Amino acid sequence: MLTFSDIEAAAARLKGVAHRTPVITSRTLDALIGARVYLKAENLQRMGAFKFRGGYNAVSALGEAGRARGVVAFSSGNHAQAVALAAQLHGCAATIVMPADAPASKLAATRGYGAEVITYDRYTEDRAAVARTVVESRGAALIPPFDYYPVMAGQGTTAIELIEDAPEPLDALIACTGGGGFVSGCAVAATHLTPGIEVFASEPELGNDIQQSLAAGHIVTIDVPRTICDGQQTQSCGTLTFPIMQALLAGVLTVPDAVVVQMMRFLFERMKLVVEPSGANALASLFHHRDRFAGKRVGVTLSGGNVSVERFAALMSGAEPAG
Amino acid sequence: MLTFSDIEAAAARLKGVAHRTPVITSRTLDALIGARVYLKAENLQRMGAFKFRGGYNAVSALGEAGRARGVVAFSSGNHAQAVALAAQLHGCAATIVMPADAPASKLAATRGYGAEVITYDRYTEDRAAVARTVVESRGAALIPPFDYYPVMAGQGTTAIELIEDAPEPLDALIACTGGGGFVSGCAVAATHLTPGIEVFASEPELGNDIQQSLAAGHIVTIDVPRTICDGQQTQSCGTLTFPIMQALLAGVLTVPDAVVVQMMRFLFERMKLVVEPSGANALASLFHHRDRFAGKRVGVTLSGGNVSVERFAALMSGAEPAG
Repeated sequence: MLTFSDIEAAAARLKGVAHRTPVITSRTLDALIGARVYLKAENLQRMGAFKFRGGYNAVSALGEAGRARGVVAFSSGNHAQAVALAAQLHGCAATIVMPADAPASKLAATRGYGAEVITYDRYTEDRAAVARTVVESRGAALIPPFDYYPVMAGQGTTAIELIEDAPEPLDALIACTGGGGFVSGCAVAATHLTPGIEVFASEPELGNDIQQSLAAGHIVTIDVPRTICDGQQTQSCGTLTFPIMQALLAGVLTVPDAVVVQMMRFLFERMKLVVEPSGANALASLFHHRDRFAGKRVGVTLSGGNVSVERFAALMSGAEPAG
Repeated sequence: MLTFSDIEAAAARLKGVAHRTPVITSRTLDALIGARVYLKAENLQRMGAFKFRGGYNAVSALGEAGRARGVVAFSSGNHAQAVALAAQLHGCAATIVMPADAPASKLAATRGYGAEVITYDRYTEDRAAVARTVVESRGAALIPPFDYYPVMAGQGTTAIELIEDAPEPLDALIACTGGGGFVSGCAVAATHLTPGIEVFASEPELGNDIQQSLAAGHIVTIDVPRTICDGQQTQSCGTLTFPIMQALLAGVLTVPDAVVVQMMRFLFERMKLVVEPSGANALASLFHHRDRFAGKRVGVTLSGGNVSVERFAALMSGAEPAG
């Protein structure tokens, strides 16, 4: 089981390495939502997303012997860059298994951190199997993207900082979720530090596998969801994250992509912040379900900002349709 | 003359009202420039630009009697919103004279702060004359956009915060300039706090009236410059700002619009910050003249972030051509 001590240990490892990202407030936003909103700006984190926390903690926790033959990760997105950068900072080799059709900017950024990138066809090949081959042939250590306690512990440090830096106790915390690693870590930290706080996972309306899983009482697997929130296209949560979410979440909020686009525009024009679709998912859920949070003090994660100018413009103009 | 005490007094008035915006650093940026760069993120200031500081200080310094018949400003941009918001916060009336073809978002934002907006045709009418009519008919107090000590004093508080919050003494400070109010205030503050610091004004290459004026030894007036940096389309500096710049500036840096666009993209994609063209002008000048600053510790103002999604996209795609 993941404990608060694990998250505290991760916080100690990350101190001076990860940015302590700001908690940002806006009178305009508070008026729009009808609540007091505290945004944890993980889009300003190193490599542009909270994923750095988990990746770094996991690579660090391996110890020197564990890192000797390098590390491996499979990811289409921010986890890839997180593990690549974490490996570079630890002076060890990293191999990242990425879909051949991943955005060129993400492939380039991952290679820019010194990682070897192995591509696969995501329609015909199984990325986990490709990664296993690397693990077996090289003896490298696999760093899973979410279903792995050291990763969850790293992500949970986000909630510690948010709660410490918010000027008042929070009634609720909303975190986006793909496989559940981020919200699980945050839930363990938040419920320890603020007993009674309600922690919500936020999912795209068309990719609500965690909502379905919690309702069913077992892990439900869905088709690859059609959503602009590319960090949340997981088909099912993990066997380690699921029981934590069962035990600690107050609920799951879902939101249509169109509302995510609306919040990305608000963050750009009113708050001058660049946030990727999944990064704006939790705020969009809060806006979509704002009646439920009227007058409350709500922490919300802006989980990442890795979106190109071109994709941002396409989303805003409708050239990339929202699901 | 503008003194450091005036700026300290402005800082006291602004305390708890203006945001103390963060000083942001980036390893990637430092590597790109070849210097240690400290960005003062005034794009995160209230109403999205440093102009709030000067507008608020000026309205505040009028005193209750001075504000009784309201305030007036003429501005096509951020100064309009700054005075409107400052008046709203002081509970007094504001009339803003704006060009009829100002961006709809700026007209709406100014009205949103409760100001009355009077529009004029900027090809046939003189905005100063329109404003004077309002002053004379209503007895309102005019808040000029830059050539006015209380405005300059407010802007100068930016440099105090940058110098206090940077973790090491600065060798140089670069601030964008239109009429010279911002860089004058910053120069008075910076040279007082850090003797020996070199303060530079930054201008669009095609709108270099201050560079020409300092070279000529008198104020030079140019045609309305063709530049995307709409906050810097002034034709000449002020009679109060000119002698301060003559006395305190180490030089004027100019930069082509295309480099401004390049830096706006860098700030978006790598730093997740939305910065308007004039807001990125000083950083673009630093990048353009980076050989001159190799290895130095350089403070740079990101002066504003008021750009719509549509204009940002047009600038990035080249649909709005850079001068």
